[in-house]
Amino acid sequence: MVNWFKRGRDRIVAPRLRARADSSTFTKVDLAELTPDREQFLGRAALAQLVLFEDLSVVVSTAASLASKERMTRAAATCLARHHALIAELDRTGADAAAAMQKHRDGVDYFQSATRGATWHETLMTAYITSGLLDDFFARLAGGLPTDTRTRVAAIYAGESIEPVLISELRLALENNPLLAARLALWGRRLVGDTILVARSSLAAQPSSASDEARIEPVFTEIITSHTRRMDALGLTA
Amino acid sequence: MVNWFKRGRDRIVAPRLRARADSSTFTKVDLAELTPDREQFLGRAALAQLVLFEDLSVVVSTAASLASKERMTRAAATCLARHHALIAELDRTGADAAAAMQKHRDGVDYFQSATRGATWHETLMTAYITSGLLDDFFARLAGGLPTDTRTRVAAIYAGESIEPVLISELRLALENNPLLAARLALWGRRLVGDTILVARSSLAAQPSSASDEARIEPVFTEIITSHTRRMDALGLTA
Repeated sequence: MVNWFKRGRDRIVAPRLRARADSSTFTKVDLAELTPDREQFLGRAALAQLVLFEDLSVVVSTAASLASKERMTRAAATCLARHHALIAELDRTGADAAAAMQKHRDGVDYFQSATRGATWHETLMTAYITSGLLDDFFARLAGGLPTDTRTRVAAIYAGESIEPVLISELRLALENNPLLAARLALWGRRLVGDTILVARSSLAAQPSSASDEARIEPVFTEIITSHTRRMDALGLTA
Repeated sequence: MVNWFKRGRDRIVAPRLRARADSSTFTKVDLAELTPDREQFLGRAALAQLVLFEDLSVVVSTAASLASKERMTRAAATCLARHHALIAELDRTGADAAAAMQKHRDGVDYFQSATRGATWHETLMTAYITSGLLDDFFARLAGGLPTDTRTRVAAIYAGESIEPVLISELRLALENNPLLAARLALWGRRLVGDTILVARSSLAAQPSSASDEARIEPVFTEIITSHTRRMDALGLTA
């Protein structure tokens, strides 16, 4: 996994430039062949969204001003609604939602603790970077779900995004304190590793050969390109 | 205030028995004469709901099981929606929502820190007892708002209640650990004092004479009666 991740970073240059030119021209590669079964997928996606809500609720509680707190409540509400929509899908399958999430708890708990920010700005950055990566990843991974579920899950991920409100909050913070840039750039780089790892471990099968890696590589290259675009949006180097 | 509060406690016995017999026969006394102006009211009510959401988000993040966590996300979502509905009312007045809340921040911050539980169960109890008291109080205080606002604010407080989900969570905890009862009874008694103080300080004018006190006393007697009913619902003595 470390090797893969290094390779991913080495290859970032070309797609990054392409993304800057026009990120909408991408043909998104999906991960349909590696989609786990419906309950597995939904349990993990719902748990990831819950972790994101928890990060954002810390951002709300510790915001320096009420104006900032209020803006962050909007992002928290959006994540919570998305989490509940995924739980509703789990309920439709007849599965026990908590039990379905429980199967993924160890891995996701590790992810949550590894990506916990030491400061308010880092926690905000965590919400921005990890939600961007994971929502992007799960939206692609949903490609292999049964048709009905796939359609509804796609609609969940295509719904209201928290990205604009998080970008403007982070930009405001960086304007007020340009010294934050170096720290947040470093933190963003740190986050991408742990987030890619938790995403990879959501695949139905773990890549175990060079040809497996070659098969999933285009997807992760695109995901990292989107990450780079997110860092760019803050004026930070990925 | 301490005197008032002591008097309130001394007088708890009769209405408590009455509440047990049939709490729905109450004619609710309203506080229309002491309702602050619309912006004052909404700023304080919205901030109180935000504090409640923050308490519940801690309950979500620190719940022992995913099943419990999931149930608590429902209460958190309901509070957050109520907070946003109150903010929407503030927006209608043309006021800056954050600035309107800011005016109440010192008092509400004190309330939040005074009612912060030391354990998960205490924090859950805080959410249950303070939401019950404050929602009850603000619903009555809304009686003096201009008609349109009053109607919509009444609908907000008459909407989905978090009480049933919190009662069942607390009952479950008490069943699993009967030793919690003494601690939660004590904590409930502690909470009522600070919550009544923050409610009283929301009145347009502070009572400064025995006749002022006599005027508002029936309201607080009823509010404490409802509090007693909430403690009863857990099998705890108020």
